[in-house]
Amino acid sequence: MKRTKTLNRARLLISCSDQPGIVASVSAFLHEKGANIVQSDQYSTDPEGGMFFMRVEFDLPAFTERFHEVEEEFSAIAAQFAMTWRLESERKTKRMAIFVSKEDHCLLELLWRWRSGELDVDIPLVISNHEDLRDIVESYGISFHYIPVTKETKQEAESDAKTLLYDYHIDFIVLARYMQILSPAFVQDFEHRIINIHHSFLPAFIGANPYKKAFERGVKLIGATAHYVTNDLDEGPIIEQEVLRVNHRYDTADLKIAGRNVEKIALARAVDWHINDKVLVHENKTIIFN
Amino acid sequence: MKRTKTLNRARLLISCSDQPGIVASVSAFLHEKGANIVQSDQYSTDPEGGMFFMRVEFDLPAFTERFHEVEEEFSAIAAQFAMTWRLESERKTKRMAIFVSKEDHCLLELLWRWRSGELDVDIPLVISNHEDLRDIVESYGISFHYIPVTKETKQEAESDAKTLLYDYHIDFIVLARYMQILSPAFVQDFEHRIINIHHSFLPAFIGANPYKKAFERGVKLIGATAHYVTNDLDEGPIIEQEVLRVNHRYDTADLKIAGRNVEKIALARAVDWHINDKVLVHENKTIIFN
Amino acid sequence: MKRTKTLNRARLLISCSDQPGIVASVSAFLHEKGANIVQSDQYSTDPEGGMFFMRVEFDLPAFTERFHEVEEEFSAIAAQFAMTWRLESERKTKRMAIFVSKEDHCLLELLWRWRSGELDVDIPLVISNHEDLRDIVESYGISFHYIPVTKETKQEAESDAKTLLYDYHIDFIVLARYMQILSPAFVQDFEHRIINIHHSFLPAFIGANPYKKAFERGVKLIGATAHYVTNDLDEGPIIEQEVLRVNHRYDTADLKIAGRNVEKIALARAVDWHINDKVLVHENKTIIFN
Amino acid sequence: MKRTKTLNRARLLISCSDQPGIVASVSAFLHEKGANIVQSDQYSTDPEGGMFFMRVEFDLPAFTERFHEVEEEFSAIAAQFAMTWRLESERKTKRMAIFVSKEDHCLLELLWRWRSGELDVDIPLVISNHEDLRDIVESYGISFHYIPVTKETKQEAESDAKTLLYDYHIDFIVLARYMQILSPAFVQDFEHRIINIHHSFLPAFIGANPYKKAFERGVKLIGATAHYVTNDLDEGPIIEQEVLRVNHRYDTADLKIAGRNVEKIALARAVDWHINDKVLVHENKTIIFN
Repeated sequence: MKRTKTLNRARLLISCSDQPGIVASVSAFLHEKGANIVQSDQYSTDPEGGMFFMRVEFDLPAFTERFHEVEEEFSAIAAQFAMTWRLESERKTKRMAIFVSKEDHCLLELLWRWRSGELDVDIPLVISNHEDLRDIVESYGISFHYIPVTKETKQEAESDAKTLLYDYHIDFIVLARYMQILSPAFVQDFEHRIINIHHSFLPAFIGANPYKKAFERGVKLIGATAHYVTNDLDEGPIIEQEVLRVNHRYDTADLKIAGRNVEKIALARAVDWHINDKVLVHENKTIIFN
Repeated sequence: MKRTKTLNRARLLISCSDQPGIVASVSAFLHEKGANIVQSDQYSTDPEGGMFFMRVEFDLPAFTERFHEVEEEFSAIAAQFAMTWRLESERKTKRMAIFVSKEDHCLLELLWRWRSGELDVDIPLVISNHEDLRDIVESYGISFHYIPVTKETKQEAESDAKTLLYDYHIDFIVLARYMQILSPAFVQDFEHRIINIHHSFLPAFIGANPYKKAFERGVKLIGATAHYVTNDLDEGPIIEQEVLRVNHRYDTADLKIAGRNVEKIALARAVDWHINDKVLVHENKTIIFN
Repeated sequence: MKRTKTLNRARLLISCSDQPGIVASVSAFLHEKGANIVQSDQYSTDPEGGMFFMRVEFDLPAFTERFHEVEEEFSAIAAQFAMTWRLESERKTKRMAIFVSKEDHCLLELLWRWRSGELDVDIPLVISNHEDLRDIVESYGISFHYIPVTKETKQEAESDAKTLLYDYHIDFIVLARYMQILSPAFVQDFEHRIINIHHSFLPAFIGANPYKKAFERGVKLIGATAHYVTNDLDEGPIIEQEVLRVNHRYDTADLKIAGRNVEKIALARAVDWHINDKVLVHENKTIIFN
Repeated sequence: MKRTKTLNRARLLISCSDQPGIVASVSAFLHEKGANIVQSDQYSTDPEGGMFFMRVEFDLPAFTERFHEVEEEFSAIAAQFAMTWRLESERKTKRMAIFVSKEDHCLLELLWRWRSGELDVDIPLVISNHEDLRDIVESYGISFHYIPVTKETKQEAESDAKTLLYDYHIDFIVLARYMQILSPAFVQDFEHRIINIHHSFLPAFIGANPYKKAFERGVKLIGATAHYVTNDLDEGPIIEQEVLRVNHRYDTADLKIAGRNVEKIALARAVDWHINDKVLVHENKTIIFN
């Protein structure tokens, strides 16, 4: 089942300092352009000195043809309020690259939801530091590029990856259990456009073998956190979190299986929201209009 | 812990046929009045011929004094778009009556959340068709009125209840396990202002003794649904639903206890959202901006 | 990640009228045989005149070779207590057939969990009344058999299916969105060995188009129920249930997607428990030792 | 609604090194005594060199009168297998002391569930280092003792508390948001008999103001962990965990309210299981037969 796409549907995303008149100006602009607002969400953090966030979904006759015109004209309003903003066309499908290592559960969940039409995205490219998942990826008709990474070749490997990302016109990256830390320079180039998934526990178990530690303390919930990658390792803005219930009968292997299943669920939701421009980032947190 | 109330904070709730210019007009109006929009949510069902829903929370200097002025001036815009609408002041605490029979779990949950400051509401009045809960209600300093109901006295009982509701200036009613069916005339008088809670199962178990039937089929989830009362019994617009996990070790009594606990949680959330004007009703469904 | 199988591990499942001495007899028998009990669960419904259920997992030296000896010797104890019982070897992987129509989400979830090693089962056979899913099934190296069903050919179709099920030595069947009702005779042949999945709502929406009805009433939870098939349509013993949270922004198509996702999760858990002999059935309910 | 207590119902809890013959010996003993096993759960961690855990619930004619006889006779079997064990009578209601500071949400949840009959426990005593909650506690007919704690008086305060605990024949203690760290000596005296509740996040936010940090990172789930107190602060065996979903609209105060609500739920379940002897502790984890 595919979600039907609407012709001429646009999404406008705005972040700026809160100040009187923003909504009125945006609405007046859209009204004047002949737009029909389908869905609009706003959120502001604090009436005094706070931040303002807005997501408007609207239909505009001949939007595809008029995209640049609308974008250009809106930039005047944006400048007036010192907005961080972007205009997106629902028709333009985003292009996603997936980075993997050897574990396939997150990769396969994304591929399945993509093929079933649940994730409205193009996946032209998978990059891996191992050859293990080549066959499965290629069976979906997706290019698989093997880029090994060692301490010595890391810079070169990232450079190769970047070339591929640009060649394939990639909009954003999903680290689907990619067991390498990206360099600050790489992260910077794709700010708020790299989604990572990692296991999460209540409370956290620091250091190696977290599942073993979780087992030893008899945790009752196993969780996962999907977040944007920043240079503060695993500390970027959270997009989605989920938990699964476990019990003392789960051994370390069972806990890992539960971990895989909860990672799949949290990551797939985060990717879906990113694709549909439902996520705004401010400082280290997300505003999600879903 | 009390949530802090903001002086001069207003909420405007709007439903109407979707049409161009609504948001622009509302925004321009609020901008002109000097309002600072704190939070705004919109939702429209369908770009062509659909419905439009909006909730705007804003701060307006001297709003309390200017309430009627704002209300009157906005009515011109409302008329233009044939809106169903209302303006609310956060400062004006809603007045809630609770109807109970003999079971106390929902009543006590509401009383506790009220006294703890979690529910920002006044509770001047509890009405019951039994005397059982008088002491506990009065210990909270709340008036308890015993109105017995029989088939013969039902009309008179409802008439007595209405008198009390008007005398106490009640804004809305919560049926906290009130085991009487209200007459269509009574329901009509408090349209979308009576909240009910009842158990819910997946799938439903029709008829008497649902917990026994649920036990006999070994259900794994016990649920509850909070909804506005309409004259279609237990079929009114859903506000909130919740489930709790159970297993084969739960006997019928245990399932009932689980049912009580999930009813408390779902009802308390529904009441909180109603109090904060986060619920809009259209036909038989709710739009909840939370 | 595969769960490691233990050599010589056995599972004994017992249901009978509750009576003194059952556990003592079973334990003494296993002790005498040299078994090491790994996990044992018992449950009895009611001390007076109730039912007793037991699942024992144990290791026994050379169990594979001694399976029939153990089975035969235990049958004397079983007779003494009029037990319904079975002995299973963990080493003997169960053989599962999947019945599908056109929808692939449940099928693919099972195939993925099977290939990833999460589901310890063999899947030699998929039967469908449509050709649509042939390619995907065959790409997993699984036989796909197309058996069309019409009112006239239903009996013949079931007969053909049975032949295949016997030829392939199938232990149990999963109806992964198979949109045909099986005949009482067929169901009887596979009593408590056919697992079905269907959507579930709180409360239930009877009749056609349940998602449309759920949308119209603004449900907040979408659920699914996995159960054994009996001749009382969709009313058999519940194995697992799950829900996902939705909101007013979900249109009917979105609710269906949520429904698919929750069906996958509930079905996969039910199949896992069935495979591992964790489910006992008594009358119309399950006892699940998980 | 009270859960009905059964006359002559006993619970036997056993932990020991796994070895052949344990279950057979226990079963034979109970059979010989004329016991009727109502529910029995066993769990063993590892067939080779692992631990064995068992909880048996059984009815025994005239158990109350024969308690010491049964206990004494069983001690021979216990010695044979070097068991850690205890025998409990359902009829003997446990006596719980609650320690609080100023926050009342956990206290009130326990009091409500106690008065409603959900928690089958006696609560003769509340101890607090503040006077704030005296009135509410005394309104339930429960003794309230104010024991202030400073760095200088800590030892004396604990000594006073212990005297009260012994005078009131307290079986176990619940720290219902008691903001003091107990001394190792005190904890030792009540090993596995002190239950604490604290907030938990995914991932953890270390240090002061965790809710502020959770807000700043935009967490989507707020959790709580109920655990037995050990001298490794907040690192004792986990009994229960729960989470509630939140979103970016929750400010720090809203997150704290969510935290309170999830703490109430997790703590009440943990206390219920402790009361019903459903929790066994081994090293730093719990085995929960529920």
